[in-house]
Amino acid sequence: MITRQQYESAKRRAAEMLAEAGVLARPDELARIEVVDLGLGELEQTGLQIMTLVSTGEIGVKVLALFPNQVFSQHKHPPLGVYPGKEETFRCQWGELYLYTPGEPTPNPRARPPAHRKHTYTVWHETVMRPGDQVTSPPNTFHWFQAGSEGAVVWSFSSRPTDVQDVFTDPDVQRVTRIVDLL
Amino acid sequence: MITRQQYESAKRRAAEMLAEAGVLARPDELARIEVVDLGLGELEQTGLQIMTLVSTGEIGVKVLALFPNQVFSQHKHPPLGVYPGKEETFRCQWGELYLYTPGEPTPNPRARPPAHRKHTYTVWHETVMRPGDQVTSPPNTFHWFQAGSEGAVVWSFSSRPTDVQDVFTDPDVQRVTRIVDLL
Repeated sequence: MITRQQYESAKRRAAEMLAEAGVLARPDELARIEVVDLGLGELEQTGLQIMTLVSTGEIGVKVLALFPNQVFSQHKHPPLGVYPGKEETFRCQWGELYLYTPGEPTPNPRARPPAHRKHTYTVWHETVMRPGDQVTSPPNTFHWFQAGSEGAVVWSFSSRPTDVQDVFTDPDVQRVTRIVDLL
Repeated sequence: MITRQQYESAKRRAAEMLAEAGVLARPDELARIEVVDLGLGELEQTGLQIMTLVSTGEIGVKVLALFPNQVFSQHKHPPLGVYPGKEETFRCQWGELYLYTPGEPTPNPRARPPAHRKHTYTVWHETVMRPGDQVTSPPNTFHWFQAGSEGAVVWSFSSRPTDVQDVFTDPDVQRVTRIVDLL
């Protein structure tokens, strides 16, 4: 849960990062930036800002803006009926992103998830992504990521998005952002 | 059919346009730019330069560079077995693109396909695309496009690419580029 003011402030900050990163966006796209706090109310530590460019029954194109050291919780995109689940290619546009996927755990990983949630991060094979670097995460496969100390702007190119069905390891996570208007 | 020298020169020119348009690309991606003359040997008039960023069994992400007034012939992406065919979203990044799709023919359209091939262009509903503009072409639906007088750089976000199966209206078109080395 975040306040309207926090939401709007995070949107503005994300829009500034997208401009800094050289991502072309229309005013209506910037106005629709989603701020995702995963229901944890710790947006600076855990969350994500998402600008969606394309979302059809076939594909999704989004640009993700992460604040400095912001982490997005471990999750996977499960199969739905005959759909094998969302396949997602991350491409770094600006800054630095640490991406974690299944495989040999990386010694001395760079990411530092919040200590009180660290037990919900179980895949530790690290890829350090800088501008132009690209990694594809297969369907139904856990992954999570954290921005470096400057933040990160990252493309997400995927098959059909199914955000609300995403499976998170952290039982406290709620994928739908609740915004409260404080009077 | 184009010569190796024409091919390499078109690649360099496309790479310069991508840089001018602010598209982030790795050297290996620029080195793999495809030059497509559609077998017509009239690249300045008809053809396309393609930088592929993602091509999986699920999606394709390409950046198209078109020289000034270059046209890409009318075609569609047909169904293949259970696959309904490639759905393609065009998003203009730089310059101006005139996109033609089925529907009410636009009076006084801006595009001027080469006169000797004009009979192969049968859909004339025009969308003028400038940076940030975006149009989705459904599977198995004819479309073609021409760049404005400065050229154009355009994203293509799509479901699974099936380039060699594309159906062109012009019977002279060959989708696979033949490069000849002149000795």
